[in-house]
Parts: sequence; structure tokens; C-alpha cells
Amino acid sequence: MLEAMSDARSTTAFLDETTALLERTPRVVHELLAGLPRSWLSAPDTADGWTPRDVVGHLISAELDDWMPRVEILLEHGTDRPFEPFDRFAHVERDRDVPLHDLIDRFEELRADSLSRLGELVDEDDLDRKGIHPELGEVTLRQLLATWAVHDLDHVAQIYAGLAGSYDADIGPWKAYLGILSRRDRA
Amino acid sequence: MLEAMSDARSTTAFLDETTALLERTPRVVHELLAGLPRSWLSAPDTADGWTPRDVVGHLISAELDDWMPRVEILLEHGTDRPFEPFDRFAHVERDRDVPLHDLIDRFEELRADSLSRLGELVDEDDLDRKGIHPELGEVTLRQLLATWAVHDLDHVAQIYAGLAGSYDADIGPWKAYLGILSRRDRA
Repeated sequence: MLEAMSDARSTTAFLDETTALLERTPRVVHELLAGLPRSWLSAPDTADGWTPRDVVGHLISAELDDWMPRVEILLEHGTDRPFEPFDRFAHVERDRDVPLHDLIDRFEELRADSLSRLGELVDEDDLDRKGIHPELGEVTLRQLLATWAVHDLDHVAQIYAGLAGSYDADIGPWKAYLGILSRRDRA
Repeated sequence: MLEAMSDARSTTAFLDETTALLERTPRVVHELLAGLPRSWLSAPDTADGWTPRDVVGHLISAELDDWMPRVEILLEHGTDRPFEPFDRFAHVERDRDVPLHDLIDRFEELRADSLSRLGELVDEDDLDRKGIHPELGEVTLRQLLATWAVHDLDHVAQIYAGLAGSYDADIGPWKAYLGILSRRDRA
């Protein structure tokens, strides 16, 4: 498996490969959530977790305050200046009255801007440059970009758990077979 | 939360609401996986789990042998005849040499056919009709359709875990924050 993965990686540069994932996320979120009946959208991913709407808000916050701002601090200041801490709950007040469809559009616009700036600022030779995370210490630009992609995956998966939660009461005995719901109960 | 959900449900019939999710799944899978660099596609969701390609194969199997065939048995035979058992690993041999893009297209076609047949055969008044699951016993058509939708959600989330696994080694110390990877390790 590791050999197959490293073979595959050698054919696509890390930056192109990471961007390929990042540019898909807003398209997937749009296909999945735009126009979906409201009844799918009320359940959080776990008992005290986030609804799909919270997740889109958090993805917006990360575009505004996390990913490209940190790339820029790293490129300008290296390890001389830590990244700003990131508020994971910035969306709660900010988005209170914003319709979900507008949040989805906003995320799409912000992601397009972020990737455009990334393309201007970073190339493959920059990936080993280092910065300082306020809690985790020294990190590389490659790790920051990889984390951006996995953060997308983590939060879209969270949307899926919330959607599944909306149907928890409807599937009856099949619940025994559906890990997405038993993991949600255990969390 | 339950009150909000039941309010929401009252505005959209269960069948329309369920179909709205089911018709999105092949579009999401297409947006996410079509043309994604190979390096994203090699990791399974858990150590002995499925790659994204396996998941698409399994979704194809379920269209062929599970959902609409079971709807038809339930409508024709009620509780007089149990559903056929479903082979969760049918894709392993069947799809061995099929390119991922062809699997995605095949799933899209099969899902469109399934939803077209569902629309012809079932209306809201049929949802309390009963059938027999070979292991779970008596189930309703509503539960079968709800399970179809949650099964989609479960398996697309599994694709997300596999994609995240492909970048496990790249994110460095951020792994501590990303539940999608720690859940994958624990599974």
C-alpha cells in the first residue's frame, strides 16, 4: 500500500494534488446541500456537535482566518512569528441570520480566492519552508497545506454524520448495520 | 431539536425528501472522485477496510441487488417472502479491471434507473407496507427507503475516511486535531 501510494505521488506534484482536492470541496458541498429539504439539516453530527450549516460556517471562518493567512505569515516571517490562533466558533454569531444557500456561495467564492492566492504565492520548492503553530510548534508549509485538505475531508464527513442523524429514527432495525449512526451515538 | 425536525418534515413528504438525498449521491461522488489524482485513491478507510473504488463498487452492487429488488419483493409479496440476502463483497471480483471513472458512470446510471422505478412503483401511501428482512425480521417500506439514504451517507463518509488516510503521513503534528484520522486509527 505505501509503495503504491508513493508510486502514485511521483506522477503528480504535491501542490497540484492538494489543490485538486481543495477545489472539489465547495463543489461537493454545493451538490450535497443546496436545495436539500430542511428536514435533513437540523441534526448535529454528535449530541453537542455541529449541524451541516455550522460546518459550512466553520469552513468559511477557516478560509478567512486560518489557511491563507497562515501561509502568508509562514512565507513572510518563517519561524520568527507564530500563526494567529484560530477561533473555531467564529461562525456562531457571524452567520446567525444568513441563509444556508448564501453560506454555500460565500464558501465557494472564498475558496476560489484562496486557491488563486495560493497559486500566486507558493510553488513546489516552497513546501519545506517552516513556520510556528501557536500550540503545535514548528510545522512545514507542506504540512499546513495537507492539513487544509484533511480538514476539508474531516468537516465534510461531519456534514454526512449530521445528515445521517436526521434519519436516525426512520431506519428501524437496520441501525445495527450502519456505522455512521452507531459512531454518532458513541461520540 | 426533535420538534424542529418534525416541523421541517411536515413541509416535505418523506418520499420526496428521501429521493432528494438519493439523487444527490452520484453527483457528489462524481464531483469528488472523477479526475482526482491517483495518489488520493489508494488508502482504505480503515486498516482492513475499503478504498474509494471499493465503495463505489459496493454502491453499484446495492443498486443491482439490494434496494429496488427489495422494494419489489416487499410490494409483491409483503411478509410472505423474505428479501434475498445481499453480497457485500460482490464488487471485488466483478470490478477488478474496471476503471474508476467507468464505475462512477455506472453508479450514476443505475441510481437514475432505480429512482425512476421507485417513482413509478411507490407513493406516500405505501410507506407503512411491510416486508421481511432475512436477518432483521419485519421492516416497513419507509424503513427500507430511509436505510437506502443512510447507507449512501455511511459509504460516502467512508470514501472521505479513505481520502484522509492518503494524507495521514503528510499532516505532521496537526493529526492531533483531526478526528477523521484518529477514528481511522482506532477502528
